[in-house]
Amino acid sequence: MRLSFHPYTLKLRETFTISTYSRDTTPCIIVRLDHDGFTGYGEASLPQYLGETADSAARFLSQVDLSQFKDPLMTEDILSYVAAIDQGHCAAKAAIDIALHDLAGKIIGQPCHKLLGLDKAKAPITSYTIGIGPETETRQKVRAAATKYKILKVKLGTDHDRQIIETLRQETSIPITVDANQGWRDPSEAIDMAHWLAGQGTLLIEQPFPRADLDMTARLSEASPIPIIADESVQRATDIPRLQGAFDGINIKLMKCTGMREAWSMIATARALGMRVMLGCMTETSCAISAAAQLSPAVDFADLDGNLLISNDPFTGVAVAGGRITLPDAPGIGVQPAGGQTETFTN
Amino acid sequence: MRLSFHPYTLKLRETFTISTYSRDTTPCIIVRLDHDGFTGYGEASLPQYLGETADSAARFLSQVDLSQFKDPLMTEDILSYVAAIDQGHCAAKAAIDIALHDLAGKIIGQPCHKLLGLDKAKAPITSYTIGIGPETETRQKVRAAATKYKILKVKLGTDHDRQIIETLRQETSIPITVDANQGWRDPSEAIDMAHWLAGQGTLLIEQPFPRADLDMTARLSEASPIPIIADESVQRATDIPRLQGAFDGINIKLMKCTGMREAWSMIATARALGMRVMLGCMTETSCAISAAAQLSPAVDFADLDGNLLISNDPFTGVAVAGGRITLPDAPGIGVQPAGGQTETFTN
Repeated sequence: MRLSFHPYTLKLRETFTISTYSRDTTPCIIVRLDHDGFTGYGEASLPQYLGETADSAARFLSQVDLSQFKDPLMTEDILSYVAAIDQGHCAAKAAIDIALHDLAGKIIGQPCHKLLGLDKAKAPITSYTIGIGPETETRQKVRAAATKYKILKVKLGTDHDRQIIETLRQETSIPITVDANQGWRDPSEAIDMAHWLAGQGTLLIEQPFPRADLDMTARLSEASPIPIIADESVQRATDIPRLQGAFDGINIKLMKCTGMREAWSMIATARALGMRVMLGCMTETSCAISAAAQLSPAVDFADLDGNLLISNDPFTGVAVAGGRITLPDAPGIGVQPAGGQTETFTN
Repeated sequence: MRLSFHPYTLKLRETFTISTYSRDTTPCIIVRLDHDGFTGYGEASLPQYLGETADSAARFLSQVDLSQFKDPLMTEDILSYVAAIDQGHCAAKAAIDIALHDLAGKIIGQPCHKLLGLDKAKAPITSYTIGIGPETETRQKVRAAATKYKILKVKLGTDHDRQIIETLRQETSIPITVDANQGWRDPSEAIDMAHWLAGQGTLLIEQPFPRADLDMTARLSEASPIPIIADESVQRATDIPRLQGAFDGINIKLMKCTGMREAWSMIATARALGMRVMLGCMTETSCAISAAAQLSPAVDFADLDGNLLISNDPFTGVAVAGGRITLPDAPGIGVQPAGGQTETFTN
């Protein structure tokens, strides 16, 4: 089994702004695993706020020697070896995990979702994120997105959250989800806001308070008519038990949790704790999005729009049709290099 | 997909005695799933103390109509349908789950352990249960078993537990595990006993106290030098979170948890909670034992001796070599009807 990788810069269709900063590109590394005539693809998306860089990921990937493994289906052994090389490097580890699942699925001749016993007809609707900018532009984006998607996601955590929602509601009545990105501070205000948002057709609220503020979050969850979902407060399966009672559910992201195998364990753990499950993403190519989408028939909410937000996707894979995630029948994660894209993924 | 089933009476090599009763046979139902030229086998073992009977299991299985499912790989949909037919009936549900995993593995052309990413070389040693009877006979059984197996399991919870262990220790020094079957009552005595047992080469203690006595169990777990494992206190994944802190680990049995899919979720949940995992069994044929064994490379302890304790095993599958579980490379759960056994499994 041979690992190779190539840096690739994702170009965002529009400047991405959250409460703390904005950017136009996202560094990424495309990973390739070759074995016995089969090729598996993986990806590490490396937005700076997660602490990994293209350099750190490349250094980590350079240390990985998979030549010692003869059978790509020995996922547990291979990923245990990769995990033990160093702490952290979650996106780089996710890239290997994704490529390995793609490779194994291709060798077996089945899409990953079928190997997990899942029915692609149960794949959920994905939300589509509306970047909030100047009002006229935002209104235009909302109108355009509302014709194509069934749920819009809005980043809140500003000092004018209600105004953002009111503006959006003047343009569309489709369901929304909101992500406060740790931006709220007052539980009483948050409870009022949750009731108001529920009345505005909001399905869920992501990460209202700073990640460690579980007591405030528990107060809100108990009073809120809509689910409160952990994002920054959760990374891996072992983080989930202490969130019970504070959050109603968790948002799983492959780049944070090290990949599909850990994500599947997180789904099982959350279900055992009676929690809801959402699948999220970074700005990513269709490679990592298609990988996450393989798990999506098992979750309640999906926010898998990362590939829709870039202009230079080097892969084709999962599609969104009528707002719903549409899984390919191709084996593995179901991706192919996009037309004209060279196998070395340079840009 | 067509389901058929046949009652089959398991004949025990020797009378099985625990603190509450004894028996010479165990009722069982063999399940067969046929689809597109492939056959999957499953089994419901029905020891009376679990509350299911051959009649209740047959009635449940008669209600299951799988003709509506065209693709046996849609495990989640199929098992959700089966689960919703009625509450309980865990062994009957396990029989369908096992047959479905066997069938799916055969269609895909891979053994279940490889589809789970597991390495058969990591399959654990299994313990072998010594029935405690008259002293001379017990000594003889211990000597014979100690030449063939690497860990012996002893049922305690009597008024002469130390004497049982002392007798065994006069015959062999190989590691043992003990199962108190809810038979202990006093936490201080239990703590003394745990230290004494640790000094006697005991690896773990199963279910010391009555199932609901989590406070007493927590006191013992905190003081015990060896792991305290839940058996009667745990059935399914949703039972596990409340055991954290009381038990160090859980014993998963397919007949109690509804099968391999739930068992896999239980392993993930226990790991997320930092708990040890053991795989156990009832008296079962090589069918259900081979199914459990497919998961065994992912666990810490195995007690998969159910097929070794019966004299009329209608299947061949997993073997024990040098005490270690040896998984077949055959697809699915890796079983075949034993030589001379008719396909209708009558006895």
